[in-house]
Amino acid sequence: KMGLWKGSLTSSGVFLLQMGWGDLGAFGEPSKETPNLDQMAAEGMLFLDFYTASPLCSPSRAALLTGRLPVRNGFYTTNGHARNAYTPQEIVGGIPDSELLLPELLKKAGYTNKIIGKWHLGHRPQFHPLRHGFDEWFGSPNCHFGPYNSTERPNIPVYRDWEMVGRYYEDFKIDLKTGEANLTQLYLQEALDFISKQQASQQPFFLYWAIDATHAPVYASKQFLGTSQRGLYGDAVREIDDSVGKILKHLQQLGISENTFVFFTSDNGAALISAPKQGGSNGPFLCGKQTTFEGGMREPAIAWWPGHIPAGGVSRQLGSVMDLFSTSLSLAGLQPPSDRQIDGIDLLPVILQGKLIDRPIFYYRGNELMAVRAGLYKAHYWTWSNSWEEHSKGIDFCPGQSVAGVTTHTQEEHTYLPLLFHLGRDPGEKYPLSFASEEYQRAVEHLSGLVQQHRATLVPGQPQLNVCDQAVMNWAPPGCEKLGKCLKAPESDPKKCSWPH
Amino acid sequence: KMGLWKGSLTSSGVFLLQMGWGDLGAFGEPSKETPNLDQMAAEGMLFLDFYTASPLCSPSRAALLTGRLPVRNGFYTTNGHARNAYTPQEIVGGIPDSELLLPELLKKAGYTNKIIGKWHLGHRPQFHPLRHGFDEWFGSPNCHFGPYNSTERPNIPVYRDWEMVGRYYEDFKIDLKTGEANLTQLYLQEALDFISKQQASQQPFFLYWAIDATHAPVYASKQFLGTSQRGLYGDAVREIDDSVGKILKHLQQLGISENTFVFFTSDNGAALISAPKQGGSNGPFLCGKQTTFEGGMREPAIAWWPGHIPAGGVSRQLGSVMDLFSTSLSLAGLQPPSDRQIDGIDLLPVILQGKLIDRPIFYYRGNELMAVRAGLYKAHYWTWSNSWEEHSKGIDFCPGQSVAGVTTHTQEEHTYLPLLFHLGRDPGEKYPLSFASEEYQRAVEHLSGLVQQHRATLVPGQPQLNVCDQAVMNWAPPGCEKLGKCLKAPESDPKKCSWPH
Repeated sequence: KMGLWKGSLTSSGVFLLQMGWGDLGAFGEPSKETPNLDQMAAEGMLFLDFYTASPLCSPSRAALLTGRLPVRNGFYTTNGHARNAYTPQEIVGGIPDSELLLPELLKKAGYTNKIIGKWHLGHRPQFHPLRHGFDEWFGSPNCHFGPYNSTERPNIPVYRDWEMVGRYYEDFKIDLKTGEANLTQLYLQEALDFISKQQASQQPFFLYWAIDATHAPVYASKQFLGTSQRGLYGDAVREIDDSVGKILKHLQQLGISENTFVFFTSDNGAALISAPKQGGSNGPFLCGKQTTFEGGMREPAIAWWPGHIPAGGVSRQLGSVMDLFSTSLSLAGLQPPSDRQIDGIDLLPVILQGKLIDRPIFYYRGNELMAVRAGLYKAHYWTWSNSWEEHSKGIDFCPGQSVAGVTTHTQEEHTYLPLLFHLGRDPGEKYPLSFASEEYQRAVEHLSGLVQQHRATLVPGQPQLNVCDQAVMNWAPPGCEKLGKCLKAPESDPKKCSWPH
Repeated sequence: KMGLWKGSLTSSGVFLLQMGWGDLGAFGEPSKETPNLDQMAAEGMLFLDFYTASPLCSPSRAALLTGRLPVRNGFYTTNGHARNAYTPQEIVGGIPDSELLLPELLKKAGYTNKIIGKWHLGHRPQFHPLRHGFDEWFGSPNCHFGPYNSTERPNIPVYRDWEMVGRYYEDFKIDLKTGEANLTQLYLQEALDFISKQQASQQPFFLYWAIDATHAPVYASKQFLGTSQRGLYGDAVREIDDSVGKILKHLQQLGISENTFVFFTSDNGAALISAPKQGGSNGPFLCGKQTTFEGGMREPAIAWWPGHIPAGGVSRQLGSVMDLFSTSLSLAGLQPPSDRQIDGIDLLPVILQGKLIDRPIFYYRGNELMAVRAGLYKAHYWTWSNSWEEHSKGIDFCPGQSVAGVTTHTQEEHTYLPLLFHLGRDPGEKYPLSFASEEYQRAVEHLSGLVQQHRATLVPGQPQLNVCDQAVMNWAPPGCEKLGKCLKAPESDPKKCSWPH
């Protein structure tokens, strides 16, 4: 009964957070504390097989905004084999000028683009989001780690558009003892104001709401502290859930919900290393953030667009954050760039007409293709959780989930006899199929064909996450003079970044 | 807006199966293949913290029908410490005459009582369900294990009321190679017919639909084979889901849904030992059937009663299968017996008025109190998965879920310093709280008080599951002459049953 959307200007909103597949009531979280997200799912479409592009934050975000795998857009490292990397304050690299970002393209269709929250695609001037298609920004370039002693390491700046307006832990308080911070409320208000402004001026918009409260160190506003069965992490989830509800309600009250496509998802699986106090749940899946098991890369995902998406839909389409690039372009009546490989696909036929598009999912860790999924089969060509050395220090990406020969603590190659799982019968990747079975032969042949095809055309981008330098940290971001917050940078001393896992 | 129910005759239906907490879409199963159960939940009330009374089938069923813990009603063994026991064909014991079963009591209020499916409370003549309050029976006394060579062991009989009408694998086919059997369809038709008959005669009824398709060896009807992403187990779940939908729709079409209270739950957690081909999922919980971790005893649970239960309700009441005893009596306007301890509570104030009743959950394994939960805290006084000897043979109740010091392979006593978990922050029981913390002290003091109180008044029943004898097997059940299916029993040779875990 819902027809294919036919191309008048429609706004888009993307909520991107760090949450696990199992953190939402709609996905089976045992205390069911996300009534607004569950309602969003009931009114929209739930994706059960939706993936991020990397088990770590920065590469996933770069992939979302470029529609391309991190290995293409440069958000990876070659400092070690199969290492995850991101953009800490020391990072020299960032999003290359040669990449075309979603907001850059949407501009051509008259969109106003805003990012609220964590950018994470590089913090040096040339990587500023307003130089890559965004019109407005309120948020920070890096994670809210801290507090730091300003002589060794500056606190993370908070920007409004081109200039810093303060720093986390200084002007934007985060109390690590109580877990109290009102940042999600600030980010919520910013979103509501932006939407009101766009509605008033009748301008289509792209809002990228990339808030950070569920990332360690976890925080929540006072009114949410102690309200969850799940502790501080749950308090943060409840505040985000409440905020999402308020944003969707705002769209409805302004009468633009039928012109606004909204998508909720996550940049990586729950950080089990921080669980249960500072990390979430990946439900029935194996391991978490940093790994290419399902817990590291399968994400909660909800599409919402009243009047277009049939309510209560459930899709088994294999989806990816990179599809939000192609889908948003399609909504704006634009074509994806034809001069480069785009990994995302347009999900509108899936969302509006219930189609299923045959496509594989590639699981990368740094520059290594660790695994591939097609249909219900997933083959691992490499397995690794983290090193024995780290593990012996208590760093565990798979707490209580050791599976012999699968969650290995050395990098194990399986190229010639991939480890094969049937994710329908065995979503937890606990029971590898027998190498001798006919089912194994058939599935692996198909998957390996897809991998061969993928590899044959792959042109890796210049790796951006190899070099670190204390001098490039956020010592003196633009606007620091007005605030008297300029710090003195040390001498430049570029080094290879150290990526232990 | 829904008022307290005021006591006119209302029928009850209880669906009892072996399924895991994570097997339903509404509880987060990743392929979401239970639209009818999910719909039942959306129209009724979902219980997130509902427990069975034992991690094994027979004791749970005895507890449901008596409202009493197995250690009281005799459904336990003292042959070994903390051993699970049930009613195989060799069992000599069964439900004692001194126990008052729910259907016996409902009779006084004019109810007609029917059991469809697995009885499991003893198969010798004195334990027959029609001697314990049921008016009708179509089903079997034991699990559908088999097929057996009739000289060593008879196949399980299927009864209609007082007499056997055939045997599994003989007259009631189960094809273990293809997994095909039409039994669920037979049991469905039987339920629909019974409900029609009761509606026509305007008689209140209690229907106990205790079917068996998701218990190994798993089966499904031809029309469901190969229809699930989850393999044969999923096919069986889909058939049950479809059947539940048909029964609820039948109630609605007959116009008696507002006079029929329906409850769906399970007798133990998913049998991970049979997963993924013959067993289900316990979602985010630890281990499965046979254990007193959450995966062994927390169950999916849905209450449905259109016009009385507010749609879409979610309750965090700590509930138990034993509560179905007290709740059903309350619905019939009856009082529970006052001459004995009843462990179940009346859930109507919870279901109809959203109240929360403070009550502990006791986790027994055989005669040992292994753990207790109150609020969000759970203390383990004993931990055990199974023995090293069994484990080394590949019998694993916690596949891929080893938690050091928790999923122990020897019986570990923690009486003096219980292992404490916060099930809100840590539903998977992976992170024991520090003994030194104030939180630990406070919670353990409270829980240990509850245990002391419980123990002080506990009068264990005569254990029914100690003695086994080949002579008591289903050699010649009543009705066998007519069918020419009487087999010759061997000489009686009673022995202690062997309960390895």
